[in-house]
Amino acid sequence: MSPDCIFCKIAAGEIATRKVYEDDVCVAFNDLSPQAPTHILIIPVGHIDSLDTAKSNEENVLGHLLSAAAHIARDKGFADAGYRVVINTNGDGGQTVFHLHVHLLAGRPFDFPPG
Amino acid sequence: MSPDCIFCKIAAGEIATRKVYEDDVCVAFNDLSPQAPTHILIIPVGHIDSLDTAKSNEENVLGHLLSAAAHIARDKGFADAGYRVVINTNGDGGQTVFHLHVHLLAGRPFDFPPG
Repeated sequence: MSPDCIFCKIAAGEIATRKVYEDDVCVAFNDLSPQAPTHILIIPVGHIDSLDTAKSNEENVLGHLLSAAAHIARDKGFADAGYRVVINTNGDGGQTVFHLHVHLLAGRPFDFPPG
Repeated sequence: MSPDCIFCKIAAGEIATRKVYEDDVCVAFNDLSPQAPTHILIIPVGHIDSLDTAKSNEENVLGHLLSAAAHIARDKGFADAGYRVVINTNGDGGQTVFHLHVHLLAGRPFDFPPG
């Protein structure tokens, strides 16, 4: 846990958040500034700054974040309609919180380019 | 390999493509309709229709696609500036080729919402 990281505090339950999914590896909750009818953030419980800083032995965590996204999509009933998964890294990517998070967006058609 | 899948043919070398990265698990090449100065697609060598249909024993492949994105970003020198990773699933997501692919976009700032 990184002491000043808001997402670490959410994962640890120190900041109350209604979780839409959780297991030993990740926690998922609704984005506070939703960009689509469904906008969920999926974060690893263990602190990782970004996709750029994930270590080779954290590849299993990265895979689990994506399979959790697919699981949530099926569980919430929007998998067949479709969804978009986005990971922003550093400035050009638009990363604002430096605890790795996967955006899971659904509930409307998404344009291309993706931003 | 899925017989009519264009990305399987690219992965197998049956369609000539200048690969920007490859290993035993994935292949990366430039998108033919780039949406940013850098727009790379990263695909698994083994056919997976989409994130929605990836099996639980393919979680390691999903993780590897993301770590390959981070590796390419660092190798090509745009990791510090930043980048966006996108996976489209089914209709609303904007998925057009049903062989799982990770979009790796860089070289300009990306807006939010991501499409």
